[in-house]
Amino acid sequence: MRVRIRELSLGRDLNLRVGANLRTALIEAGIPLDSPCGGQGTCLKCKAQVSGVSGRFTDLEREKLSAEELRDGWRLACQVIVEAPGEARLPEIEVSRAKASFSLLGEEIPLQPNVYLRHFELSEPTISDQRADWNRTADYLEMSVPGPVRADLSTLREVSDRLREWNFQGEAVLVGDTVAALDPPDSARGALGVALDIGTTTLAAGLVDLDTGKVIALDAELNPQIVFGADVISRILYAQDSPEKRKKLQKELVKGLNQLLLRMCRIARRQRGRIFEATVVGNTTMLHSLLGLDTCHIALAPYVGVLNRALSVPAKELGFQIHPRGKVHILPAIASFVGADTVAVILATRLYQTRVSRLAIDIGTNGEVMLATRDGILTTSTAAGPAFEGGRIKFGMRATKGAISSFQATPSVDYTVIGSTVARGICGSGLIDLVAELFRVGILDRTGRMLLPSETGSSLAIELARRVRARGEEREFVVFRDEETEITLTQQDVRELQLAKGAIRAGIELLMKEANINTSDIQEVLLSGVFGNYINRERAVVLGLIPPFPVERIHFIGNGAMDGALRALINMEERRCADEVSAQVHHIELSGRADFEETFVRCLKLGVE
Amino acid sequence: MRVRIRELSLGRDLNLRVGANLRTALIEAGIPLDSPCGGQGTCLKCKAQVSGVSGRFTDLEREKLSAEELRDGWRLACQVIVEAPGEARLPEIEVSRAKASFSLLGEEIPLQPNVYLRHFELSEPTISDQRADWNRTADYLEMSVPGPVRADLSTLREVSDRLREWNFQGEAVLVGDTVAALDPPDSARGALGVALDIGTTTLAAGLVDLDTGKVIALDAELNPQIVFGADVISRILYAQDSPEKRKKLQKELVKGLNQLLLRMCRIARRQRGRIFEATVVGNTTMLHSLLGLDTCHIALAPYVGVLNRALSVPAKELGFQIHPRGKVHILPAIASFVGADTVAVILATRLYQTRVSRLAIDIGTNGEVMLATRDGILTTSTAAGPAFEGGRIKFGMRATKGAISSFQATPSVDYTVIGSTVARGICGSGLIDLVAELFRVGILDRTGRMLLPSETGSSLAIELARRVRARGEEREFVVFRDEETEITLTQQDVRELQLAKGAIRAGIELLMKEANINTSDIQEVLLSGVFGNYINRERAVVLGLIPPFPVERIHFIGNGAMDGALRALINMEERRCADEVSAQVHHIELSGRADFEETFVRCLKLGVE
Repeated sequence: MRVRIRELSLGRDLNLRVGANLRTALIEAGIPLDSPCGGQGTCLKCKAQVSGVSGRFTDLEREKLSAEELRDGWRLACQVIVEAPGEARLPEIEVSRAKASFSLLGEEIPLQPNVYLRHFELSEPTISDQRADWNRTADYLEMSVPGPVRADLSTLREVSDRLREWNFQGEAVLVGDTVAALDPPDSARGALGVALDIGTTTLAAGLVDLDTGKVIALDAELNPQIVFGADVISRILYAQDSPEKRKKLQKELVKGLNQLLLRMCRIARRQRGRIFEATVVGNTTMLHSLLGLDTCHIALAPYVGVLNRALSVPAKELGFQIHPRGKVHILPAIASFVGADTVAVILATRLYQTRVSRLAIDIGTNGEVMLATRDGILTTSTAAGPAFEGGRIKFGMRATKGAISSFQATPSVDYTVIGSTVARGICGSGLIDLVAELFRVGILDRTGRMLLPSETGSSLAIELARRVRARGEEREFVVFRDEETEITLTQQDVRELQLAKGAIRAGIELLMKEANINTSDIQEVLLSGVFGNYINRERAVVLGLIPPFPVERIHFIGNGAMDGALRALINMEERRCADEVSAQVHHIELSGRADFEETFVRCLKLGVE
Repeated sequence: MRVRIRELSLGRDLNLRVGANLRTALIEAGIPLDSPCGGQGTCLKCKAQVSGVSGRFTDLEREKLSAEELRDGWRLACQVIVEAPGEARLPEIEVSRAKASFSLLGEEIPLQPNVYLRHFELSEPTISDQRADWNRTADYLEMSVPGPVRADLSTLREVSDRLREWNFQGEAVLVGDTVAALDPPDSARGALGVALDIGTTTLAAGLVDLDTGKVIALDAELNPQIVFGADVISRILYAQDSPEKRKKLQKELVKGLNQLLLRMCRIARRQRGRIFEATVVGNTTMLHSLLGLDTCHIALAPYVGVLNRALSVPAKELGFQIHPRGKVHILPAIASFVGADTVAVILATRLYQTRVSRLAIDIGTNGEVMLATRDGILTTSTAAGPAFEGGRIKFGMRATKGAISSFQATPSVDYTVIGSTVARGICGSGLIDLVAELFRVGILDRTGRMLLPSETGSSLAIELARRVRARGEEREFVVFRDEETEITLTQQDVRELQLAKGAIRAGIELLMKEANINTSDIQEVLLSGVFGNYINRERAVVLGLIPPFPVERIHFIGNGAMDGALRALINMEERRCADEVSAQVHHIELSGRADFEETFVRCLKLGVE
């Protein structure tokens, strides 16, 4: 036998089996319920305010819940056995509340999105006012909207029934000039938008309540295309074999995005079908892949893609599982290796408004460098490779739980692990620290060669160099070892890091040369990227990743690309600004320059100045 | 065995069976070939200039073709047996050349359509000009187009391949701001548009070469929805039963339009896939039906439809078999019974520019009346019914071959038949003549009653009244009789005509009353509609269909609705003007007026002044 339980926080009716455990049943119904203890009754996180459903508190509940909670009908869902129809209200989940405080670089962005709601109350048709139903609706909406209001055929096909059902009142959701949905009056269903940053490795998303402009969830996921190749070039090579493979990459990517959106919406207790617009940034190859565009010319000189302009497409055409009349707005890119993510960083950093010289570096799988001077903005892309994201590093990993994220060389070694757990690997910031510290104490020389105790000088170096293990020419530094595991930094890892930091540094040098300015002219350096928040500025200078700027001029901005995508989602002026930025920024192609090779080789060295 | 024959006028390659008759094979391949004799070799219409294909002239060809024709390789396709590969060129078909002379009410409309072609010659990408392929194309096109140029995903997905295939040159076909097709350079494929007038009974179409603005074919077809009911009300009743029936009506209509377009394109030897835009006028119910919109509220007071504004929809969404990225632009309507066809007539007649009072009447299944004064335009719709199109008339038919189109009462009867053939029925203008003449000579009295010889006065009436046959109260006038057939006008036919003309006349009277003007104030009367060209003005006045205007003020304008649809197709200013007209025209709903009933009853009488 089954009974009807109304879950109030999401407003969903569930048909649950009598005798079922409420916690299990809610999770199975896809309602997110925080319960890390797995239903043991120990974490006390699965609290729900219940009426009906089940008769009486268990002894465990009487013991664990406060008198006030008991009085107000709070239960532990894991202790409730479904017996009768009733209601349950879950508390708001912590994560969504925590992330609502996300700020767009501290700046208040006015809410002026492409998606907005309008209430309507129409006069009913009479023989002296025979306006057609859509004309009547549009006439009303146009009183508070600039320009004519449009509708798709699918909306027009339902408008007459809806108006009569709701006595000619309701709510309209507009996407741009088009009514995308008609809601019953006072339904307060709201409208959501999502900002997406499609990286080669990581998909990041920010869910926004477009009624309030608040970010209600932030989340990230691995790009599922990763199984087809770690970097853009290998994906391009994969896709160029056949249109089917190109389509497959597109589908996998959209599938990943849809899953990410589903999860976020569950956590935020909102419906995916209420997302009316997605703004999308990412590198040019990923944007092409999302749109199913040919990428084969991106990889070959002179490196031209199909499209670098902004594009709005119906979500349906791409397979996005949001509102069926929702839109996907792709932000403009600058060049084949300077994508919409860079435009978004420029948006987020207000680099285009600068009166002094400012440098921004966005480090993902590629490293994009932006230099703003009074004469405009120069950008370039450097083939940093995936080292900073853990790629091609023996124990490399992303900056998640278990990653060594900072390191200090003492006679012993001193490091921190994200999540304060046992170390599982090394993330980008940890890698920078490790190499910078080993270079500082003398275990790595300027060429990056790892030295044995016999080859080093200082006593600290000799002490630490004992951790260097040599097997023929292969050397590795043991960071951590216990009975079961060990984590090492290999000579090859150091080489990978050198290639990455050499590429970025060469990009910085050549942009400064192009703009004819020196390190001392640059008033501010902005570090963007997923691992930016963990990087140690002094070490980045020691390593030579960035020129020797005074540390107080170096700032972290977190994920600037996501920040820019969010801005374009909630404010149309920002979106227009993105178009201007993409048209005005001057892109420097490094591979076309005679001085690139020499600069790059010089920048490969550790500690270059 | 099969051989390849290239048909040059359409540029098609055919794979024909050796031994096949060329005429039969061409017709089977869908290539239109005028050959009324059915291949007997007598009509001499299936001439084709042939090289290869077949060895020698037949005796019949030597006899029938001139020495010059024989020298130039002209053959009769019906005499040619396919033997070898070769070429055949068919002459242009008469009908398309004849109809190219169609003039838009004699006025020259500047060619400024929504569909236009642009040649492009792009610089090739280099390392110093890395613009993406679409950016490069759009940048070029935007030099000669106002505002930004857009493209659908499907176009973006092919642009890179096409540019490289054609050395970065080609032709773009734009529909509005969107590139709908990319053609090879110098392919001169051109672009077509079509204007459609969707009547309850008749579908009319005008095919236009949008390169030249020339109408290259005009054609008409019965509306296939007719099997679901002769008038709009019966179609509305049919459709309201279920969404499936509504969909069925939509599909049948589109199927009919597609067949009409296919036939026209075959005759004009152009490809249906090169039609990039259709402009559509028609009564409001037909436009709703085309769009699959709910019509049920149109038939019930206060008679409101879903949509009276203009609407552009992708042709694909409606099932139009034109270019897959083509558009269908529905012109705006005014009210549920004053459709886009009326807007088109106002466009065609320039009624909105008038400084004097002018009256226009569009007679189809409904009769729409438009009265323009210095104060603006008033319109109304009158339920004329299908009598003028032959509906509900015993021997009624449309104005095609075999229809009695004019009639004069002499002691005998004197009539003309369209196509100068044996009479098959009576069309609208013939019906008006018949009733007007019988009324004039006294066989019909003012109430419309048909009189027997004993009931009439004059000798002419007595002579003619012998043709009146009475069977009880049922009377009919025998117009024509031979051994096999007869054609009569029944008392019921007269009643149907009275209802039709009474409705229209009442509409005219009430609009004049509303505008506070008299018959003598009206400087011009314009008659529009398919049968307008055949109507006799004096008789229309005698009948009382129209007030007693001086005949020289009454003008025929042919199918004004088609004329307006063509204008909106070839000139965007006209299209914008249609929107203004629909918003500004003042619609008078007759059913809401206290004085309608009395006026209508008065206007039912014959000869009312």
